[in-house]
Amino acid sequence: MLRRLARAATPRQRVFWARRSGSLAEIPTYVVDLRSDTVTKPGPAMRRAMAEAVVGDDDYGEDPTVRDLQATAAELLGVERTLFVPTNTMANLISVMCHCRRRGSQLLLGRECHLHVYEQGGVAQVHLLARRYGVRVHLDGARLMNAAVALGMPPARIVEHCDSVSLCFSKGLGAPVGALVGGPKDFIEEAWRLRKALGGGMRQAGVLAAAALVGLADAEEMLQRDHQNAQRFARGLQELASPVCSVDPTAVETNMVMVRVDGLPPEELCRRLQAVSADEVAQTGHAVRLLLFPWTEHSVRAVWHRDVSAQDTELALRKWAFVLRTLRTG
Amino acid sequence: MLRRLARAATPRQRVFWARRSGSLAEIPTYVVDLRSDTVTKPGPAMRRAMAEAVVGDDDYGEDPTVRDLQATAAELLGVERTLFVPTNTMANLISVMCHCRRRGSQLLLGRECHLHVYEQGGVAQVHLLARRYGVRVHLDGARLMNAAVALGMPPARIVEHCDSVSLCFSKGLGAPVGALVGGPKDFIEEAWRLRKALGGGMRQAGVLAAAALVGLADAEEMLQRDHQNAQRFARGLQELASPVCSVDPTAVETNMVMVRVDGLPPEELCRRLQAVSADEVAQTGHAVRLLLFPWTEHSVRAVWHRDVSAQDTELALRKWAFVLRTLRTG
Amino acid sequence: MLRRLARAATPRQRVFWARRSGSLAEIPTYVVDLRSDTVTKPGPAMRRAMAEAVVGDDDYGEDPTVRDLQATAAELLGVERTLFVPTNTMANLISVMCHCRRRGSQLLLGRECHLHVYEQGGVAQVHLLARRYGVRVHLDGARLMNAAVALGMPPARIVEHCDSVSLCFSKGLGAPVGALVGGPKDFIEEAWRLRKALGGGMRQAGVLAAAALVGLADAEEMLQRDHQNAQRFARGLQELASPVCSVDPTAVETNMVMVRVDGLPPEELCRRLQAVSADEVAQTGHAVRLLLFPWTEHSVRAVWHRDVSAQDTELALRKWAFVLRTLRTG
Amino acid sequence: MLRRLARAATPRQRVFWARRSGSLAEIPTYVVDLRSDTVTKPGPAMRRAMAEAVVGDDDYGEDPTVRDLQATAAELLGVERTLFVPTNTMANLISVMCHCRRRGSQLLLGRECHLHVYEQGGVAQVHLLARRYGVRVHLDGARLMNAAVALGMPPARIVEHCDSVSLCFSKGLGAPVGALVGGPKDFIEEAWRLRKALGGGMRQAGVLAAAALVGLADAEEMLQRDHQNAQRFARGLQELASPVCSVDPTAVETNMVMVRVDGLPPEELCRRLQAVSADEVAQTGHAVRLLLFPWTEHSVRAVWHRDVSAQDTELALRKWAFVLRTLRTG
Repeated sequence: MLRRLARAATPRQRVFWARRSGSLAEIPTYVVDLRSDTVTKPGPAMRRAMAEAVVGDDDYGEDPTVRDLQATAAELLGVERTLFVPTNTMANLISVMCHCRRRGSQLLLGRECHLHVYEQGGVAQVHLLARRYGVRVHLDGARLMNAAVALGMPPARIVEHCDSVSLCFSKGLGAPVGALVGGPKDFIEEAWRLRKALGGGMRQAGVLAAAALVGLADAEEMLQRDHQNAQRFARGLQELASPVCSVDPTAVETNMVMVRVDGLPPEELCRRLQAVSADEVAQTGHAVRLLLFPWTEHSVRAVWHRDVSAQDTELALRKWAFVLRTLRTG
Repeated sequence: MLRRLARAATPRQRVFWARRSGSLAEIPTYVVDLRSDTVTKPGPAMRRAMAEAVVGDDDYGEDPTVRDLQATAAELLGVERTLFVPTNTMANLISVMCHCRRRGSQLLLGRECHLHVYEQGGVAQVHLLARRYGVRVHLDGARLMNAAVALGMPPARIVEHCDSVSLCFSKGLGAPVGALVGGPKDFIEEAWRLRKALGGGMRQAGVLAAAALVGLADAEEMLQRDHQNAQRFARGLQELASPVCSVDPTAVETNMVMVRVDGLPPEELCRRLQAVSADEVAQTGHAVRLLLFPWTEHSVRAVWHRDVSAQDTELALRKWAFVLRTLRTG
Repeated sequence: MLRRLARAATPRQRVFWARRSGSLAEIPTYVVDLRSDTVTKPGPAMRRAMAEAVVGDDDYGEDPTVRDLQATAAELLGVERTLFVPTNTMANLISVMCHCRRRGSQLLLGRECHLHVYEQGGVAQVHLLARRYGVRVHLDGARLMNAAVALGMPPARIVEHCDSVSLCFSKGLGAPVGALVGGPKDFIEEAWRLRKALGGGMRQAGVLAAAALVGLADAEEMLQRDHQNAQRFARGLQELASPVCSVDPTAVETNMVMVRVDGLPPEELCRRLQAVSADEVAQTGHAVRLLLFPWTEHSVRAVWHRDVSAQDTELALRKWAFVLRTLRTG
Repeated sequence: MLRRLARAATPRQRVFWARRSGSLAEIPTYVVDLRSDTVTKPGPAMRRAMAEAVVGDDDYGEDPTVRDLQATAAELLGVERTLFVPTNTMANLISVMCHCRRRGSQLLLGRECHLHVYEQGGVAQVHLLARRYGVRVHLDGARLMNAAVALGMPPARIVEHCDSVSLCFSKGLGAPVGALVGGPKDFIEEAWRLRKALGGGMRQAGVLAAAALVGLADAEEMLQRDHQNAQRFARGLQELASPVCSVDPTAVETNMVMVRVDGLPPEELCRRLQAVSADEVAQTGHAVRLLLFPWTEHSVRAVWHRDVSAQDTELALRKWAFVLRTLRTG
């Protein structure tokens, strides 16, 4: 029954009151979803922008909002042209298909947000290699804005040594659907043909582009908050000094925390973090469903995003502490 | 300057007052766009539905609005499962790629709305052939709902002899983006894999599915109106009895009118129908920009849709009559 | 005579000696493979042509044998240009992806060899419909040459009402690998781009084109033989007058025979036709493994091709008769 | 001796006699093609293997030569399974499409043969990063065997930190067509589905696999020779001490030489190296067409392969010296 109520829950923190007899009655269950930053739901400003978007048939190049987004992003990324596509996967696929037609080859870089990859020791080194041999570099910018915010660097500077780049709007930027691919004019012309052939040429795509523009507008503020929450969580988990779960806060550079798990399978830990019980309510006063995915055989990944507040982060820490206590005593 | 004003025009009928001295001053220019039913812009009900849509991460199968649409459409089409995709092109591409993996082969049927194809003399004949030889039939349902409304037949009956089907939401149904592919459970499972691989796996696609649901809800009423307007236009044009433009009203089955053009290139006719002049205003009292595409070397196609009212249809007829008069006298 | 057959069977029929005690010892087992015309293995002439082919880098347009094949096929099909690709599936996929970029739409026609589809009552009717509405027609020519031979009609005449066409070399034409797509110059230019993007741009493809040229050269003679063998088999099976297996010889137009199966599952029939037994040897003097696929729930499809001789066809009939007798008595 | 060279040049070097009056009459023109290692033509051993290959329908998994190649390559690369595909582009495309379906992401590495990428400082560093964050690494092995030979390292050791790998047979290995993709069993099962959907599922592909097996068998010997020839050329060019063309022999690690070009556009240098003249014959006794591609704005790339002998390398050096002299004096 909790499950049924959880499904019916309203956005953001999906709080509801479990109305049944017994100890869980009248106790709110919080759902904190740290599985991925792809789960964000569009907020009020984004929804309003979608509802009010001026649109046209983008297949005829007549959607003003898509054109606005494409021009804005081209300037932000320092590329000649960009092209709006349904997903970051298609942006990368189109890039791979475009580049294979040219002499030389390519490196795909950096989807996950590792500053190692983006920092001067990364992209720049790749650049030296690439220029020397005429290799083409495509930057998978699934979380490029996170990197830019963390490095305090304009995105265009990260991109400058690359031949093409993708940018995803439906992860940290919080838009429901959409990404784009950027590069030189002739590259984008070819990308346009492939977008059509692959079935990515949407019609009144301005309703999606409008949400993406809102996501870009407050990106810096929102991503900085995400990174701070991730840091707060990592430090809090370290302070628990558990032999089961450990984390290196200095490795938390952006919105992701990799938690090393010893002594039990990551799947089992995730299962316990997701379950709620009367004990939990008795000890902590809350019922928190913490959603996470196992990452490797010995780790769990937690990802911060727009729909996880500082308060949610505190609840996540408390739930984690409760589960670790249970493991010790259980 | 008219062009500049036209660009600035507001949706639906894009009417505005040209405020300058001279004969066109204070005369509204109407834009009637008959190029394609892909140009429809989402109306207020659709935009409200998008703004209020309950969404989730559809890549995890957690978007309730997408699931609602997929179930609704499966019932409507009489298929086991459906899958939401960004465009009708991707729906067809995925189907071709799925079917090629099976023994036998396929026929792709019926994108344009020819009742010939859909009527018993069409799909059913193909069916006999297909069943006899084990050929798989995919129905390209770009305008399937137009056919169903025109035939007064449930869509499921048109689809029943087919192995798979697509359904487009961004043509006559008026949604900004989206289509779906339908078929048996194992077909859709394979389609799901290919959607991901081709970059069609969108996240909070519920914002788009919500618009599609609105489009489905009032489809019958809206498409019937489109068909009536197309009929009205065809009869009106026939009554002009012009040697340059002729049309067979009995061939107008749905929302498309094919106008045969003799004595001048279709491109030239389209150019004249789009231009506005002081003469037009003096003679008709209006300035109407009628947008059309040449279709073949001797025809022009006009397509009715949600954003063309009965009044727009009258204006289109008058503009056409004016241009034909000009041709005679010019 | 068995020895003579065994000798004649190599290398087209994989002959092996059942080495075990009992009645099957030293009895040659003939394998007659009627599963599909895709199973043909290149014969000596084809292999010699491959070994002697003059080749170049086709990605630079420098392979003379590929260019020869493309020009030969363009003339045969009556199209402006053709493009060599690895498979007929890719030829169709590229066509679907090319056409989706244009206004109008397409029909995919005729992969299986149904003369219904190719005859004037088929393609021509589709043509009238297509021209009237500006629909593009792609002809899936997986077995186009079979149709041309059966109709006694030049392939170009079948193709003339179509906008694009594929031609498969690895079915009835007997080549190991290869197909092509044909159409107008600008269509093939776009196809060339997509071939590269999809990973179909092979280098010294002349070794494959050489085999395809051999396949084209003796196509008429070989396919006529296949059709005669299929006819002979259909009549022979009808003469058995079995309630279990029936066939309509007038429906056998080319190299395929659809056998209706009643009273047992097609899978079970196929299993029995493939098995060899001491009884079979005792009664017929042969051990024949007849390979077939179930087609629909009540039919089995048998396909003739280069590697099935008139003698093989007789063996197939005798094996079928033996199995039917077993079913009656068993 | 010229005649002897001319004889030796066939069929690997296309020789032709310039038939016109004057000094070029009866002088053989040697073509040395250093544009790419994709231009190699299959030699006698490879052609014999293709002509004698035992084949079957690989779509049914029945081609023994393809299975032999796949098993051989799996052992060589140290992966669970491999899958034969038409081109290295398709191998990479399939990998990108497979990986996008999994959590995490991927890096595409190393198509061009930079030992930097393959050496411990390369793949291993990427590995540490990748394992830490769960990133999937696909190794683009277009020239993997060159790297293995140059490093004196088994290919499996280079591949061991990667999740998937491609291997191209139509570059340095000299086969006319073919590549493969390798990885875990479930990855290859998905790759198999995508190969079919993309139109890469060839039938009697054993004729191509046979050539690839020959290419693998003598890979070490042939690639070592290519690397030595490239080295010899680089040292020879350096000894010319030209201000126009410079090269760093220590950077020549495998079969590629990047020549820095100053003072004239690379296109112009390529044009001069390709042209033959009476002056060249008078001064050098030869007429050599040296084919190369410009690489970057200031460099030309020369690539060694099976069809360029030590003698061809000497001719290439002499032609280069002649052109540089011309530039000084011209």
